[in-house]
Amino acid sequence: MLIKKMLAGLLFLFLLQPAFADEIIHVSSPGRIVQLDIHHRSSGELLYEIAFKGKKAIAPSGLGLAFSSPAVKLSQFTITGIDSLVTDETWEPVWGEQRTIRNHYRQLVLSLKDRNGSGIRLRIVFRVFNDGLGFRYEFPAQDSLSHFIVADELSQFAMTGDHKAFWIPGDYDTNEYAYYTSPLSDIDATGGGFAQEIHAKTFFDRNAVQTPLMMKTADGLYINIHEAALLNYPAMNLVLDKQGLIFRAHLVPDAVGNKAYLQAPSHTPWRTIVLSDRAGDILTSRLILNLNDPSVVPETSWIRPRKFVGVWWEMHVGKSSWDYSGSQVGSQQATRVPHGANTANVKRYIDFAARNGIDAVLVEGWNTGWEDWFGQWKEDVFDFVTPYPDFNVQELSAYAKAKGIKLVMHHETSGSVTNYERWMDTAYRFMKQYGYDAVKTGYVGRIIPRGEHHDGQWMIRHFERVAKKTADYHIMVDMHESVRLTGLHRTYPNWIASEAARGNEFNAWSKGNAPDHETILPFTRLMGGPMDYTPGIFKIKMSHYDPARKEQVHTTLAKQLALYVTMYSPLQMAADLPENYEARPDAFQFIKDVAVDWDDTRVLDAEPGDYIIMARKAKGEDKWFIGAITDEQARNFTSSLTFLDVGKKYVATIYRDGDKADWSLDPESYVIEKFIVDQRSSLKLRLAPGGGAAISLIPATAAEAKSIKKYK
Amino acid sequence: MLIKKMLAGLLFLFLLQPAFADEIIHVSSPGRIVQLDIHHRSSGELLYEIAFKGKKAIAPSGLGLAFSSPAVKLSQFTITGIDSLVTDETWEPVWGEQRTIRNHYRQLVLSLKDRNGSGIRLRIVFRVFNDGLGFRYEFPAQDSLSHFIVADELSQFAMTGDHKAFWIPGDYDTNEYAYYTSPLSDIDATGGGFAQEIHAKTFFDRNAVQTPLMMKTADGLYINIHEAALLNYPAMNLVLDKQGLIFRAHLVPDAVGNKAYLQAPSHTPWRTIVLSDRAGDILTSRLILNLNDPSVVPETSWIRPRKFVGVWWEMHVGKSSWDYSGSQVGSQQATRVPHGANTANVKRYIDFAARNGIDAVLVEGWNTGWEDWFGQWKEDVFDFVTPYPDFNVQELSAYAKAKGIKLVMHHETSGSVTNYERWMDTAYRFMKQYGYDAVKTGYVGRIIPRGEHHDGQWMIRHFERVAKKTADYHIMVDMHESVRLTGLHRTYPNWIASEAARGNEFNAWSKGNAPDHETILPFTRLMGGPMDYTPGIFKIKMSHYDPARKEQVHTTLAKQLALYVTMYSPLQMAADLPENYEARPDAFQFIKDVAVDWDDTRVLDAEPGDYIIMARKAKGEDKWFIGAITDEQARNFTSSLTFLDVGKKYVATIYRDGDKADWSLDPESYVIEKFIVDQRSSLKLRLAPGGGAAISLIPATAAEAKSIKKYK
Repeated sequence: MLIKKMLAGLLFLFLLQPAFADEIIHVSSPGRIVQLDIHHRSSGELLYEIAFKGKKAIAPSGLGLAFSSPAVKLSQFTITGIDSLVTDETWEPVWGEQRTIRNHYRQLVLSLKDRNGSGIRLRIVFRVFNDGLGFRYEFPAQDSLSHFIVADELSQFAMTGDHKAFWIPGDYDTNEYAYYTSPLSDIDATGGGFAQEIHAKTFFDRNAVQTPLMMKTADGLYINIHEAALLNYPAMNLVLDKQGLIFRAHLVPDAVGNKAYLQAPSHTPWRTIVLSDRAGDILTSRLILNLNDPSVVPETSWIRPRKFVGVWWEMHVGKSSWDYSGSQVGSQQATRVPHGANTANVKRYIDFAARNGIDAVLVEGWNTGWEDWFGQWKEDVFDFVTPYPDFNVQELSAYAKAKGIKLVMHHETSGSVTNYERWMDTAYRFMKQYGYDAVKTGYVGRIIPRGEHHDGQWMIRHFERVAKKTADYHIMVDMHESVRLTGLHRTYPNWIASEAARGNEFNAWSKGNAPDHETILPFTRLMGGPMDYTPGIFKIKMSHYDPARKEQVHTTLAKQLALYVTMYSPLQMAADLPENYEARPDAFQFIKDVAVDWDDTRVLDAEPGDYIIMARKAKGEDKWFIGAITDEQARNFTSSLTFLDVGKKYVATIYRDGDKADWSLDPESYVIEKFIVDQRSSLKLRLAPGGGAAISLIPATAAEAKSIKKYK
Repeated sequence: MLIKKMLAGLLFLFLLQPAFADEIIHVSSPGRIVQLDIHHRSSGELLYEIAFKGKKAIAPSGLGLAFSSPAVKLSQFTITGIDSLVTDETWEPVWGEQRTIRNHYRQLVLSLKDRNGSGIRLRIVFRVFNDGLGFRYEFPAQDSLSHFIVADELSQFAMTGDHKAFWIPGDYDTNEYAYYTSPLSDIDATGGGFAQEIHAKTFFDRNAVQTPLMMKTADGLYINIHEAALLNYPAMNLVLDKQGLIFRAHLVPDAVGNKAYLQAPSHTPWRTIVLSDRAGDILTSRLILNLNDPSVVPETSWIRPRKFVGVWWEMHVGKSSWDYSGSQVGSQQATRVPHGANTANVKRYIDFAARNGIDAVLVEGWNTGWEDWFGQWKEDVFDFVTPYPDFNVQELSAYAKAKGIKLVMHHETSGSVTNYERWMDTAYRFMKQYGYDAVKTGYVGRIIPRGEHHDGQWMIRHFERVAKKTADYHIMVDMHESVRLTGLHRTYPNWIASEAARGNEFNAWSKGNAPDHETILPFTRLMGGPMDYTPGIFKIKMSHYDPARKEQVHTTLAKQLALYVTMYSPLQMAADLPENYEARPDAFQFIKDVAVDWDDTRVLDAEPGDYIIMARKAKGEDKWFIGAITDEQARNFTSSLTFLDVGKKYVATIYRDGDKADWSLDPESYVIEKFIVDQRSSLKLRLAPGGGAAISLIPATAAEAKSIKKYK
């Protein structure tokens, strides 16, 4: 690690005349690509302003906080100190999109004192990277401040124009909205984006959106606003002042309307702004991860990226039920169907996983309580240790072990978090007793403690407690209906994924996800961390299960394969039913082959809302995988393979859309072709409307190099 | 047990003309002392009316409930069935004020259907005893109702006049108010009764009072309104409509304003009205206990009434601190004092207990967190398993065991109940590891989950969880700052006491408790169950510890002794410091002698707010103890001892006020006299202002019968 104290690149401009003019502090990123200007007004107010390669990115924007206890507004400051340093270090994540990550920034620390008599001291810390910036508020231990309650955060993000934005409505409880693409001036959260399918949602302002918020300016600058290291603080929504095109931070309140209870020393999360003139660079930015603390899990060898199948999609499509009495399915329809999590069925999945090199099997609906789990704000729903009578946990645990398969536990809390917290220790002990090393948690429904929200400080602290306690038990955790991620998997690498956005499941029983959905998610939700999106659906149309049903996945089959590359997660589900994979073993081969942990990631081309083409190199292996996806538009691409080792021959297996494929009219048509390629090859790809292509690139044996034709 | 189905005593009066007139159902108690009339109006409304020995006790009062989900008001009913039976059974409490309790009542069940189209069926069940009545609402399982949310309970209690009332302000969070005595029309909860000393309080209506509410009519009828078996429902306050002198139920709301989340089948607690023309009969009424369910604790031999001392009063008087750094004392003063819960000091208490036949030693301030435990709505305060460095739990556990003394654990939650619930299992395991079999819990401060209240449904369910879980661990529990009791110690006999009212501790650091306080408590707070009042203070004036201090206990020393009889609890603290007892071993002898579990209880005379004289017979022994207390008035009584065995001689040891004793001027003056008495004796007692007398009656040996003089 290299930390160099330096003041180069930091300029203080004191414009002493006239006396009411700003004092300006100017800081550049190490490569002088991003420029930060701090304006200190004579009134004491502080504003920050950002430029990217000389182009205005963020107009002057206010900073500050308001407390309800003590009742002070911290917006006018005396600057008592200015410090700067440059950090340049490289670290290795436990798992991730690349083997090593460079953390290179110039830091500016403004030491401040409230001008209005409270005596409160604070710091605002800026870290300026070549791909953006983070800032946060810090409260050192001091006599003037111990416990305090945050009433409002006054951080602003002033836009320089009416940018194109990729947004979902602001909400205190859910992030499972469909995306809107519109100019900022057209933001209207009232409609709520397919919101009728979401069970706990809290609308609060028609001009409110969530982060990560992706934008593109008229002159081609990409701007992504989010936060990093969200701990012990509520999540931030952004409310747009449409007159000034200024976003204001809006923190999720607690049951009595407060925002955060803090005690000095403490600090807020980082507010992050990722910037680039190339969309792909937004996707490979590691700024958010870099602003998180290193792992606090002392030993991490037990944390293993993996693929899994699950007794899960069959409930979503209505083939079986979560509950023993057979009424709880994805569409909430009342038809009686068999209970999914029965011993024989789970064995079938274990057998399938073992046959196909899939690491693990998730089983939902294994525990009592599902008959009345939902929608009533009921506190004592599940106990997390009592299986249904047809789920033999002991037998299955032995069976899975004998086959080398891990079972994945499921803890649906139904939003009753007080109940879950009472059971957590007992539930994790139960898991370890039966050999489970991973849990998928769920938070469907309104939160108990009643009045608290999914994204408020109390729940943020809960999610951290879960991450900590599972780590203590050497359990990996995949949280559904959790708060959006903010890079905390650096600190808690056992927090291996979250849902926290609109997943593939919505396609099974609702209007679903539009064809551009997966081209937006990596620019928004995935900025904070991996998503358990559950790709890999082969039976695209729900009419397969019931001719009367109109729902469908809004992609082609080939695009479902490409998602294993474009939707990064160390935990990837092969979400469809074993029988659907067994009907198409050739296409399933890609899911078997694709890696879940990576040495390197390249974005070959990307445009949010339109398309993404990515190549990734498997961790520790000379294997590359390419995923290409498009929205509802058919597109042609040429992908050069310059990232391959020079002079080496690879077998490229291309899983592409059939020539007449179309997400709506002919989604399951695909073609698989094999070619010999090398570093000089250029692959021509045609993606169907809502389509995609998946490619594996594996060093060719001598025999393959002879027998397989060269790509031209 | 005798249950006899009978309709005798149940009259249906159908006044068919005119058509709009009431239908009346008349029910009498088994001894025809209490009469209940149900009026069913032609509008469908139900009212109940109660008379005691022909005298109106409760005027016609409304019944019903309002739900917010489904949104229905249940106040107009069709009667679909009327059932009646008489129960006459006798049962033995695990511990209590008498060895056997008779449960004798006539029950009326009204089966009802909502008249306004919801289809909801319910029952109102009345149990009419010779000393009062209980009623509750029951919701059977039905297609028309599953989950529902109670918005309001419409139960009324209409008074027949402007009675004298003994009341404390209505509140959602505290019952530690000083009592007011006033006519109903003068109720004004605004002032809040010495409320500045209470840390979490929630005023909501100037006409609101808490139950148990004690009243006396102008013609000498005593009326006590409370509730029984408060489970899974909020506590009830009463709001007085001063025009009509009608009390209306006011349930404690949750964080979002709802009252109770229920699911059919379910029922409300019992609303209780205890009636008598003799004040003493109010005190010996077992109506509330009888309305609670029998014990659900399968094996109860480990539950033992006991006396204890504690490292506790020394913190209240400011001699030592709860926290290690020496700043947390009863008066919240900042002076540095030694940490109370140090190993050497605890050993001193263990030695004292062992020398004096005291069963147990409570230690507060033993665990880390007290430096910052208070008043900040902080969630993670205590972990309940980490001792301060000067408290050697292992050593003390062994030391206490060797001396035959039990240590009593202390769990102050500081109102952070989410935190306590996370720790409960671990904390109870820690207790059992070190041989603790009892815990004193505390709930000082505002509740977390924030927005919830001490007396709301969420906390009521918490208190039950604590009772259940401690029972599972064979742990007795004494809850402080809990909801007022409602007889649940019948169902959970390990819930051995609660504070839940203004205890003796207030005398150490506040305006304290007026001399009439202890003459009111048995008629109010103690109606629901035993109170850990912590009597036995010998050093009455706080100037003993610091000449500058003006606080004092508002009784004489002799009255402190009498409280062991008049303030029933199976858990009695000898609350003063060992050195104060050692300075007065003659007076301390009464505390050593007095029983804590009883075969029989007689109220010799009583008047709420004025005086109480009680005699109790020790469980399984021919020993009687008398306690006599008065308010600020000196009083003379003559107590005949007719309850003693005929022909048997007893040594009466009388601990009485000195001739010039006075709670204010000369509180510590006392006289101890011994006499031989028998069943024909009549003791003349003079109680000083704020004074009392305590008497032990123990069979005389032959030698004693000769050597001690006879009482005349």
